[in-house]
Amino acid sequence: MTVRIGLIGAGRMGQVFAAHLAYSVAGAKFVALADIDAARAAELAGRAGGLASYGQYADLLARQDLGAVVIASSTYSHAEVVKAAAAVGKHIFCEKPLALSLAGCDQAVAAAAAAKVKLQVGFMRRFDAAYQAAKEKIVAGAIGQPVMFKAIGRDPRCPDLDYARRENSGGLLMDMAVHDFDLARWLMGSEVVRVQSEGGCLVFPELKAVGDIDNAVVNLKFANGALGNVDVGRNAVYGYDIRTEVLGSEGSVMVGYLQQTAILLMTHAGVTHDTVPFFMQRFGAAYLAELRDFVACIRDDREPTVTGQDGRAATTISLAATLSLDEGRPVSLSEIKSE
Amino acid sequence: MTVRIGLIGAGRMGQVFAAHLAYSVAGAKFVALADIDAARAAELAGRAGGLASYGQYADLLARQDLGAVVIASSTYSHAEVVKAAAAVGKHIFCEKPLALSLAGCDQAVAAAAAAKVKLQVGFMRRFDAAYQAAKEKIVAGAIGQPVMFKAIGRDPRCPDLDYARRENSGGLLMDMAVHDFDLARWLMGSEVVRVQSEGGCLVFPELKAVGDIDNAVVNLKFANGALGNVDVGRNAVYGYDIRTEVLGSEGSVMVGYLQQTAILLMTHAGVTHDTVPFFMQRFGAAYLAELRDFVACIRDDREPTVTGQDGRAATTISLAATLSLDEGRPVSLSEIKSE
Amino acid sequence: MTVRIGLIGAGRMGQVFAAHLAYSVAGAKFVALADIDAARAAELAGRAGGLASYGQYADLLARQDLGAVVIASSTYSHAEVVKAAAAVGKHIFCEKPLALSLAGCDQAVAAAAAAKVKLQVGFMRRFDAAYQAAKEKIVAGAIGQPVMFKAIGRDPRCPDLDYARRENSGGLLMDMAVHDFDLARWLMGSEVVRVQSEGGCLVFPELKAVGDIDNAVVNLKFANGALGNVDVGRNAVYGYDIRTEVLGSEGSVMVGYLQQTAILLMTHAGVTHDTVPFFMQRFGAAYLAELRDFVACIRDDREPTVTGQDGRAATTISLAATLSLDEGRPVSLSEIKSE
Amino acid sequence: MTVRIGLIGAGRMGQVFAAHLAYSVAGAKFVALADIDAARAAELAGRAGGLASYGQYADLLARQDLGAVVIASSTYSHAEVVKAAAAVGKHIFCEKPLALSLAGCDQAVAAAAAAKVKLQVGFMRRFDAAYQAAKEKIVAGAIGQPVMFKAIGRDPRCPDLDYARRENSGGLLMDMAVHDFDLARWLMGSEVVRVQSEGGCLVFPELKAVGDIDNAVVNLKFANGALGNVDVGRNAVYGYDIRTEVLGSEGSVMVGYLQQTAILLMTHAGVTHDTVPFFMQRFGAAYLAELRDFVACIRDDREPTVTGQDGRAATTISLAATLSLDEGRPVSLSEIKSE
Repeated sequence: MTVRIGLIGAGRMGQVFAAHLAYSVAGAKFVALADIDAARAAELAGRAGGLASYGQYADLLARQDLGAVVIASSTYSHAEVVKAAAAVGKHIFCEKPLALSLAGCDQAVAAAAAAKVKLQVGFMRRFDAAYQAAKEKIVAGAIGQPVMFKAIGRDPRCPDLDYARRENSGGLLMDMAVHDFDLARWLMGSEVVRVQSEGGCLVFPELKAVGDIDNAVVNLKFANGALGNVDVGRNAVYGYDIRTEVLGSEGSVMVGYLQQTAILLMTHAGVTHDTVPFFMQRFGAAYLAELRDFVACIRDDREPTVTGQDGRAATTISLAATLSLDEGRPVSLSEIKSE
Repeated sequence: MTVRIGLIGAGRMGQVFAAHLAYSVAGAKFVALADIDAARAAELAGRAGGLASYGQYADLLARQDLGAVVIASSTYSHAEVVKAAAAVGKHIFCEKPLALSLAGCDQAVAAAAAAKVKLQVGFMRRFDAAYQAAKEKIVAGAIGQPVMFKAIGRDPRCPDLDYARRENSGGLLMDMAVHDFDLARWLMGSEVVRVQSEGGCLVFPELKAVGDIDNAVVNLKFANGALGNVDVGRNAVYGYDIRTEVLGSEGSVMVGYLQQTAILLMTHAGVTHDTVPFFMQRFGAAYLAELRDFVACIRDDREPTVTGQDGRAATTISLAATLSLDEGRPVSLSEIKSE
Repeated sequence: MTVRIGLIGAGRMGQVFAAHLAYSVAGAKFVALADIDAARAAELAGRAGGLASYGQYADLLARQDLGAVVIASSTYSHAEVVKAAAAVGKHIFCEKPLALSLAGCDQAVAAAAAAKVKLQVGFMRRFDAAYQAAKEKIVAGAIGQPVMFKAIGRDPRCPDLDYARRENSGGLLMDMAVHDFDLARWLMGSEVVRVQSEGGCLVFPELKAVGDIDNAVVNLKFANGALGNVDVGRNAVYGYDIRTEVLGSEGSVMVGYLQQTAILLMTHAGVTHDTVPFFMQRFGAAYLAELRDFVACIRDDREPTVTGQDGRAATTISLAATLSLDEGRPVSLSEIKSE
Repeated sequence: MTVRIGLIGAGRMGQVFAAHLAYSVAGAKFVALADIDAARAAELAGRAGGLASYGQYADLLARQDLGAVVIASSTYSHAEVVKAAAAVGKHIFCEKPLALSLAGCDQAVAAAAAAKVKLQVGFMRRFDAAYQAAKEKIVAGAIGQPVMFKAIGRDPRCPDLDYARRENSGGLLMDMAVHDFDLARWLMGSEVVRVQSEGGCLVFPELKAVGDIDNAVVNLKFANGALGNVDVGRNAVYGYDIRTEVLGSEGSVMVGYLQQTAILLMTHAGVTHDTVPFFMQRFGAAYLAELRDFVACIRDDREPTVTGQDGRAATTISLAATLSLDEGRPVSLSEIKSE
């Protein structure tokens, strides 16, 4: 069975998914794509081998021949598009975060459940070889009982202000930290129950005007008593810096490095190596692996590896962390309600 | 001018200082030592070359020929011994923390000021070559404006319960994290104004009975708006793990490594190296350097590099972090009063 | 212009090239493949999307619609196939080494020149990002004048004896070290003029029966006086280990690392990380890049990046190193004659 | 029993030994020192706590109260001073190399044997924690059967020409490589039987006038068939670079790193760390450990850890490597005769 796939969204992530879908996902056929910028859609469709392209995602969804969609539209629209796709019975891969509100998540999850379609959320780090090896080590007991989760997530530069705007991206603690919050749940095997945030606009004052910040630290408390901290920022001028550690009672496992190519330069100035430029260099293979896994879950008719509930849970932590930041107090996750 | 020095305390740290004072501090003469365990004092005095030894520190302080004392007695007694030494006009080097209470710190600082004697606190990390290089890079502007302070401080094993008892050690956030809080102030060049702690007894349940915990994370907010997080723990079974990072607007500087000897073993099982066993292997040279600096500050009649005020400030952060942990809320440092 | 390409050889390397040609080389169309094992050819042709397949490479070469061929047949046949392809005017990409004898190289180069077709040799390391960065640093003068070339090339296991047989592979100093000899010429910017080899059958005694060894060291002397050493072996049980260094008058540049995924495991046993399993994990991207470059040189009608002369020069060093090993004496490259 | 020790030679290494003998070798008393520059001797004697000093080493040897001497005079004089010390019954620690000629080594060894005094040679690397750990791993079978020895030994700068002069230092392959040749024998557990050298004056042409070179590579063949290569040079402008690897049938062990302090700087320019400045920073602790071991072997009346025979064997390899370089051919160690 070949899964015929349409792509919604031809922006930065849409272009990544298009390249993978066009050439590298066995069992899938890339058929059509849509973007609200119809010219951009047509241009990308041409590069991907001459697909059908649409300026309205509804037109794409109207095609009877599609079995699944990959959603890479603007974050604020995710929930709405998921619901529309579920309504016409398409299996759904949705780029993270699933929705900016808990209500949005709940509606998306409910829609997929009602339509009996797969709903997978794009936490690609779970498909990175190093994170998978870390998870296996933890499950195998190599570090004993996990007691501390530490994560650093830093982008090398400030995004466009329009992208960063809190209504669009959800802000730093949604847009970026949601990846770390997903890793926290997955690697620790326990739910986050309380968060404490500090944050600020320390390097890019222009972010203030769009309701965002550029640096934050968030303490985590897990249901099983374990602890954690996530540090996110937008000013890692030295390169894309993603590091994660799980400390256990009998050891620790760390994922992350700062070197891109295997070259060291040694001069009077010391030893120098390069760094990872950005997310595609670090997680390019994982973006492909998650699409392959999505297609496999449809063909094998099994649960997605990262479910809508996973998307909902990570969004909830982001919302709680943002509330903690706004109100300057610890926030229990039970405070975050569906509307 | 030779500085004649007496040592008070012949425990773990006292033995370290004794070895350095006996052989390796030019300009100093190691003359006498005291410990409440008179036999232990005599034994160490013998090993250090046949010094005078006392079971009462008051007897050591009564010697007219001493110009300075090094205090490595139990933490809870630091403030009292500092006051006694100041009262008889001795210059004072006091192992960290200066005192477990703000009142104790204030009395110690006031006593030294009144007696016009030097008072240096034993934050030895400031004398480590790597931390000094980091400080120099920051001051030179290599990372731009510092915006985030990150620290990991993990011991490889649980201390004796009697040592850990909160009345004796001040607990994890005083005993261990005080080093990181001192680094925070020094490297960031700004005072901490608010803290948020999470902690727990996750690996060594026996610590509960003595009022202590084994893991904690503490968010920091600095006066200039910068952010921070300190993670401390007692279960780094893989080795002594001290890592510190300062992220700035134009780069980042990290201190810390996990390798002790320069050997890599590569087998079917992968690549393996050893780790740093404990604090003396990591900071042995720094413990010597701080004593040399103390003697130099007496001989040159200048301010100590790490002052009593520095000791007070770090203790204040530890107290605030402990209060935040106890009460489950952010604590402003202005809440911490002298009694 | 689309370059229509046929592949000759469906073994280990043929399968790698087939995957790349099928999906990932823009401007190329993968049309047909041949292997002396016709069933293997058919099987691979099926996997690559239903190409034509042949049991005789002459049948593939007889196709008028092919503009170029990729040769990945057994090493001993390279020269013969190159000549046949040149005779029918196909552009040629030939897997390394170009030929096992200098006469073979000369005939291949002459045939391509006479037919005015491109001839590129598969030294894929030149297309690896790290090696390219190293070359750029050297050319930019970052290490001053290069004076020493060092290379380690170690496979994780012994090949099939039939593959290793000296008549088939040329032996360790041809089969493996030829990569390092090519890097030596390229990175040092000077020709090798003399070699001194030591080698032996130290781990896999069964190699003796097929005229091969498992470990060797080869000293190099360059025309400009610079020095070098290459160490090759077949028993890096810990992983595929390729390391190269160029030391200059003002610094040094090193390429190579032993870590595959970005994970560190820290336990009572120390710190452990994985290693690079084998050549496809290390140079997978380079194998693709060299095919893209080959297609580009045809489309742009320019010289290949790695020419037949480069293939000839590296083979010459391998032959000299093998002679030095056999006769236990330094060998000047001028001793190696075309027959 | 306290061993009363005199030091002969107050140059670079003499000053290192003086500091250790004065303060840090339990069981030893540092009593006197001699240097042909009497003023330099007196100056160092004063710094070491007011010892007796001599301009003639014979005067020091004439003291009845000395039990042992440490010889750190110019290399060319080692054999002569060893014989003189043995003649008056002093135990002897001699800085490497034992002698520049095989005859010198043989006379030194014979003199110590006849006088029944200890004779230890200063191959301090054997006392470095990392090299000791490597040796232990090899002995424990962690890498299987050793098959390849690799060493890099590079100084950060050119020595004084007078020091480098071949009559004084023995040249690069004696002065520097003798350390690597000693490691080769010790770590491989087999004797070197043949060498092949290439070398040249590539960076410091002024060395030619004193009969020396600045870079060399030396292939080694061991009695058990194992292979090796040593690369030595004088132009590691980036820092002191000592790396050693033993590859075995079941793994590999590497010693050496390029980082001195535990600091990483990450900026737009990439990640940078410092390097090891020179030998005292890398092997300072080993120089102390070897003196402690020498005193212990006297007190325990046991064989030195590094014997005169070890010194002779390493010198023999250096002589063979130098001959190979001079004559451009492989040299068997059996060619090197005692005069």
